[in-house]
Amino acid sequence: MKKTARAHTNIALIKYWGKRDETLFLPTNSSLSITLDQFYTDTSVEFDDVLDQDTFTLNNQPVSETERIKISRFLDKVRSFTGETRFSRVESTNHVPTAAGFASSASGFSALAAAAVKAAGAEATLEELSILARQGSGSASRSVYGGFVEWQMGEREDGLDSYAKQILPEGTFDVSVLSVEVSTEQKKILSREGMKRTVETSPFYQGWLDTVGEDLTNIKDAIINQDFTRMGEILEYNALKMHATTLGANPPFLYWQSATLKVMEAVQAMREKGLECYFTIDAGPNVKVITTPKTEKEIEKKLRSLDVVKDIYPCRVGPGISYID
Amino acid sequence: MKKTARAHTNIALIKYWGKRDETLFLPTNSSLSITLDQFYTDTSVEFDDVLDQDTFTLNNQPVSETERIKISRFLDKVRSFTGETRFSRVESTNHVPTAAGFASSASGFSALAAAAVKAAGAEATLEELSILARQGSGSASRSVYGGFVEWQMGEREDGLDSYAKQILPEGTFDVSVLSVEVSTEQKKILSREGMKRTVETSPFYQGWLDTVGEDLTNIKDAIINQDFTRMGEILEYNALKMHATTLGANPPFLYWQSATLKVMEAVQAMREKGLECYFTIDAGPNVKVITTPKTEKEIEKKLRSLDVVKDIYPCRVGPGISYID
Repeated sequence: MKKTARAHTNIALIKYWGKRDETLFLPTNSSLSITLDQFYTDTSVEFDDVLDQDTFTLNNQPVSETERIKISRFLDKVRSFTGETRFSRVESTNHVPTAAGFASSASGFSALAAAAVKAAGAEATLEELSILARQGSGSASRSVYGGFVEWQMGEREDGLDSYAKQILPEGTFDVSVLSVEVSTEQKKILSREGMKRTVETSPFYQGWLDTVGEDLTNIKDAIINQDFTRMGEILEYNALKMHATTLGANPPFLYWQSATLKVMEAVQAMREKGLECYFTIDAGPNVKVITTPKTEKEIEKKLRSLDVVKDIYPCRVGPGISYID
Repeated sequence: MKKTARAHTNIALIKYWGKRDETLFLPTNSSLSITLDQFYTDTSVEFDDVLDQDTFTLNNQPVSETERIKISRFLDKVRSFTGETRFSRVESTNHVPTAAGFASSASGFSALAAAAVKAAGAEATLEELSILARQGSGSASRSVYGGFVEWQMGEREDGLDSYAKQILPEGTFDVSVLSVEVSTEQKKILSREGMKRTVETSPFYQGWLDTVGEDLTNIKDAIINQDFTRMGEILEYNALKMHATTLGANPPFLYWQSATLKVMEAVQAMREKGLECYFTIDAGPNVKVITTPKTEKEIEKKLRSLDVVKDIYPCRVGPGISYID
């Protein structure tokens, strides 16, 4: 019984920045994201007793053995949850612009969790899917749902209370997310590595932990009240704080490049001229500009005129997991 | 009796970032600087009983009344220290490239303190001059001395233990400081204002306070041992941490512009190619590159090739206060 699921990427407005457990992907703070409508992963899973190991193709290509083993370890968790004992054939197709700084791991593990549970003939609540997806990649816990989504960090050591829930469904409060790709040589400190070094060495990490809860409370209130300006101010502040913590790491590092700052400056300049837009930045040089559907086109045009901007990928608020067959 | 003193600007390697007393200019942390040889202020002071108020010309021009009153308040402190009762005629000439982000307040108040004490026919130790100068501008406390200078924050409420002392005299460990002016519209949050907002609102300020003492201890050790690399690593880290604190202020702000980051990236790229250089940044977009006299020319040339670099002002380690007549 082959089952296919689709899950969309998400962009965090309150960042997931730090793990308290590296193997279970348990975070040190709760986070909040928007699921995006344009970028997604389709994954089909079929358990089959003729297989003597899990197989995995990504965009119709077999992956490296390291990658395959990683997926197989994840499938062990699904087997343990469902009681399924067979190996499986996994086929995954990404529709994610990795050039714009999107990882496909959020949509990927979310789609995989959903398809695998279904293919095993089992049932899972969205919370259970979120817990499963989280164990592949932290941010995947949020891609289970559409709209605005909070990943509640939880307290338990086994992670059973660390899952996402929907704050506001898609179609209620539409915002526009412009993913701005800047011209840059990629000299990347992986998100996982940067997070770890920051947690372990930055004197600013405690300040992050001390204030992220307040940011989360405030932004949820802004989202529920559809207060775009307040949401924008909080999300930009939260992103700045996340990146500030890396400057205190030892050795220090910064995901921004001069091109990143140029886009940030442009966003602030447009805002001073009355255009509602705010930026957020993840563990890389690209910028996501959050604006309203009304001003999206004008802002995209202005951003495209910057010499450092290579491309822009516009999105709106997208849906949660769906099943294709 | 007209007396003229000269004092040089300085560049902080461990930043003065935060006041515990706004009127006495008492800092929340000790700091450390290099006095620069090329930029200075010459100030002459003459007390005269024909005057019914202090007069002040800067570069042969009378200053605004606000500025004059500020200087007069400072002279009150000198009068109180020396027992002098007359008003004075003050003439000051700046040789400081303010375009490169240098304030003239450090050299200015240091020269003024020295000339005024002398003109009053009094004597002051360098520590006493440092305490006086500090009450005009915090960083002026360091410009009393040449070479590498530490401003010890002190503990007393009256500030009598908050003064600078020399760590290593000029001529012992020569380093080159390239002040890099970047093309930029100045949209400045004054250092005093930025400092205050950061102390009052940034969740990262405690992390700054918790670690600046260690940076200071380590850099003093590096300087005394003339370990350029270690000194460079510490000063760059300290500058990054200072600027990180502003990203947590509410509202957040950043002194860097995209041009600033471009110079920072160039410095790191040169270093990766084996050229010894490190950056530091004060409360503005310009960058100071610390390098060795040996590599100074090569680095200056490479930096001048960047499109964002408007001009470069090279300096070496300079002297403390001197008296011209």
